[in-house]
Amino acid sequence: MAKTEPGRFFEDFRFGETLVHATPRTVSEADAALYLALTGTRFAVNSADPFAQSLGLKRAPLDDVLAFNIVFGKTVPDVSVNAVANLGYAAGIFGVPLFSGDTVTARSEVIGLRENSNRQTGTVYVRSRGVNQRGETLIDYVRWVMVRKRDSAADAPAPSVPKLPEAVAPADLVVPAGLDLARYDRVLAGSRHGWSDFAVGDRIDHVDGMTIEEAEHAMATRLYQNTAKVHFNRHSESKGRFGKRLIYGGHIISLARALSFNGLGNALRIAALNGGRHVAPCFAGDTIYAWTGVLAKAEIAGRGDVGALRLRTVAAKDHPCADFPDKDGDAYHAAVVLDLDYWVLMPR
Amino acid sequence: MAKTEPGRFFEDFRFGETLVHATPRTVSEADAALYLALTGTRFAVNSADPFAQSLGLKRAPLDDVLAFNIVFGKTVPDVSVNAVANLGYAAGIFGVPLFSGDTVTARSEVIGLRENSNRQTGTVYVRSRGVNQRGETLIDYVRWVMVRKRDSAADAPAPSVPKLPEAVAPADLVVPAGLDLARYDRVLAGSRHGWSDFAVGDRIDHVDGMTIEEAEHAMATRLYQNTAKVHFNRHSESKGRFGKRLIYGGHIISLARALSFNGLGNALRIAALNGGRHVAPCFAGDTIYAWTGVLAKAEIAGRGDVGALRLRTVAAKDHPCADFPDKDGDAYHAAVVLDLDYWVLMPR
Amino acid sequence: MAKTEPGRFFEDFRFGETLVHATPRTVSEADAALYLALTGTRFAVNSADPFAQSLGLKRAPLDDVLAFNIVFGKTVPDVSVNAVANLGYAAGIFGVPLFSGDTVTARSEVIGLRENSNRQTGTVYVRSRGVNQRGETLIDYVRWVMVRKRDSAADAPAPSVPKLPEAVAPADLVVPAGLDLARYDRVLAGSRHGWSDFAVGDRIDHVDGMTIEEAEHAMATRLYQNTAKVHFNRHSESKGRFGKRLIYGGHIISLARALSFNGLGNALRIAALNGGRHVAPCFAGDTIYAWTGVLAKAEIAGRGDVGALRLRTVAAKDHPCADFPDKDGDAYHAAVVLDLDYWVLMPR
Repeated sequence: MAKTEPGRFFEDFRFGETLVHATPRTVSEADAALYLALTGTRFAVNSADPFAQSLGLKRAPLDDVLAFNIVFGKTVPDVSVNAVANLGYAAGIFGVPLFSGDTVTARSEVIGLRENSNRQTGTVYVRSRGVNQRGETLIDYVRWVMVRKRDSAADAPAPSVPKLPEAVAPADLVVPAGLDLARYDRVLAGSRHGWSDFAVGDRIDHVDGMTIEEAEHAMATRLYQNTAKVHFNRHSESKGRFGKRLIYGGHIISLARALSFNGLGNALRIAALNGGRHVAPCFAGDTIYAWTGVLAKAEIAGRGDVGALRLRTVAAKDHPCADFPDKDGDAYHAAVVLDLDYWVLMPR
Repeated sequence: MAKTEPGRFFEDFRFGETLVHATPRTVSEADAALYLALTGTRFAVNSADPFAQSLGLKRAPLDDVLAFNIVFGKTVPDVSVNAVANLGYAAGIFGVPLFSGDTVTARSEVIGLRENSNRQTGTVYVRSRGVNQRGETLIDYVRWVMVRKRDSAADAPAPSVPKLPEAVAPADLVVPAGLDLARYDRVLAGSRHGWSDFAVGDRIDHVDGMTIEEAEHAMATRLYQNTAKVHFNRHSESKGRFGKRLIYGGHIISLARALSFNGLGNALRIAALNGGRHVAPCFAGDTIYAWTGVLAKAEIAGRGDVGALRLRTVAAKDHPCADFPDKDGDAYHAAVVLDLDYWVLMPR
Repeated sequence: MAKTEPGRFFEDFRFGETLVHATPRTVSEADAALYLALTGTRFAVNSADPFAQSLGLKRAPLDDVLAFNIVFGKTVPDVSVNAVANLGYAAGIFGVPLFSGDTVTARSEVIGLRENSNRQTGTVYVRSRGVNQRGETLIDYVRWVMVRKRDSAADAPAPSVPKLPEAVAPADLVVPAGLDLARYDRVLAGSRHGWSDFAVGDRIDHVDGMTIEEAEHAMATRLYQNTAKVHFNRHSESKGRFGKRLIYGGHIISLARALSFNGLGNALRIAALNGGRHVAPCFAGDTIYAWTGVLAKAEIAGRGDVGALRLRTVAAKDHPCADFPDKDGDAYHAAVVLDLDYWVLMPR
């Protein structure tokens, strides 16, 4: 009996099945420190316990993208280890924050399957949910990936594609229990601009750039126990599609979010992931820049202290974003690597 | 009076003396997180407190190879800073697990000395023991190293070579106090295969490969406070034997153990180190692969929940292990870098 | 309204104003572990809680240079993000040690301003103070930087240059509350030499060298939330002054201090920073060596257990320090990169 796990191929997925992902993980302040060392993030709520406590939280929560990447990592061995491409995200809701000492586990439900016409691959849609040790939802999101078939002649299931919302509705956004921004200190937070200062259509160039080293993205991705081979194996990838290791897309999201501090320093919480596309691959040596557009504003019912902004953050490589590189129809500017649509919470 | 420590040369060692090693260290969850970021290890018992607690442990212990490397590192300034080569290991027993908050100290006893015929070097045998703050043994093992003489004309002690066992006897393996695998969850652990599923002679290709960057091995080796110059100093090593920095052999053991998860995911504890050989040097840019052979199986007296497997894990560089690269007599396949013989504990 | 922070230019500073720096940070054992992984430091007091407790401290404090770098990092966005050069340090006093769990905040007072004759730049003198969550001073120091003007025609304030001491007076050195070296264990500390063993004029070659990788200095500098662009952005720096990223000078101080363990292993506490000059820039791939001269010795009033040494540590790159590379008048040996003047505490 073979002892190694080859991972699922397209024909191994069954519509409606639940995949229980392995390797529960207890997170600690070390995850926060490593994440900081790898991204340079500066959001005060994730950096200092007293700041977080002044907002009603028990201590500084881990960065939201870090939490996302840990949950995502758990799904890889069961969902995407044989994937050709990560195609998209939708309907992502951030529930309770992730705190040091919490233990993360994750499950995914197969909510859609569609073989591609070439019969070599198919698209798998999963709804993945990461929970803490109390079973509270940390993150619940849909992603779809193109997965290879083991055998192109194998039968495919009846095609099924889930209906996905264009964006999470403001009424579905979760404000963490106890959060109260009455005492939010914008000086300590490092940014003057709150929810009221932003208007739909605003565009913010985040100015700074961050270069990625091979050791950095590999450390980040291993920290998430993400096992996708393309990120780690120079020997095999040197003969692969790009001739070198590919950077995990979630690390680009981490950097874009960290860069967005300069301009969005009070965007203290990612509340939802409406959609996202890894437009082009990134490699060690690339320098990531980013800009953000404000897509929508929403009040939070019954709350005068906090509002929601729907943002679109675009990351580009080796290209400063003062000219807001964008897409034109379906075609993106050649430098764009990430197009992310999400909701944040911000003091009003 | 010179203030810097040159380290011991061969003629400085005395048979029977005890070396008390410097720099006690209190370990934390940060060691676990850094180790994860540097190796990608996925053993559930080391990853999640609730998983470890379901097995009767107080919380997730640090990885066994991490514990070994921390103890090893302490011995370097006193034993091997002037070593030419690390020749072997034997009789290594893992006692109590190492937990976050524990403080590690180490001592070594000189148990053998033999000058080489060229009078330039000699072999030093030490039994090193790492203990926690309660004096409980974490790891107790023998290693032997070839150490330079300061002065080739210096007198050598009478030759003395210890008798070392070929392997640790199963009766000497330590099952951590309180460990009870009745509730061991193989789904969360990420592997279906327990002790009963393995047979002597089985060979497992661990499939995955992990490339090592200069920053990664140096960070790991500094974390262990290992001071061997060959790992850190590009300037001097560029004029040295290999023209570049050499990767600490213990980091290769770490990677081989982490890779072995794919196939041996339930090998939750290293119980003994029977022997080990660093067959060839590794350098930044190398990609490590590994395979494992099952050498023996042993029951643990009075235990129906846990058994021991004696394993031989062979690591190779830039060579996938589907063909199980091995040795032929005394000669190894050119790609092999590590040949490690050890006992693990596994749920039956 | 532009949302991104451009940082202050020379004409934006006002004499006497106080800058409240952003991003408070709660430090943890992870900072200690990362710092260890990035520097290889071996001072026992920072490495093991029981060792620190045997000296009357509540647990192992974080490394003093780590504390300095965290405070320094906070000042960058407000003081030096538009700086051309970091010119000097003076009058730095280390107060209470920084412990895991503490939260660091920082403020700076503008104590001097002087436009340069070319009117393109000016020198800004600030006194920066980092405090813990109880408002106790961790570090209080002066630095001066050359900052660009936004507009060379802009009016400059009346020139004002503070009077700075050549060195901190021994009477102003702070011995941490409760520190008692009666039980200091030199074997565990790894060095035999105490305060009594050193004489003014002694010179110590620290022997070892440490090579810096791009990922390493960038991780260290991000951990300090230092936002100076020159350390992180290969894309822009490839067109800049050096054609590549510049290593943060504080990382060189970290490495020089870590290297100084070999010879100064009992220098358990940095008590003051008298002055410092980053003589030449460092880049990834450089190997740092260091030597130290003893400038002065001072008794601590009423204390028989601890004394102070005034040290000058000189770091050089790609040049072992057996020949003590130094300065000749105003000109430094070509290999020198750092000249640091500071007080340490040491058991007598």
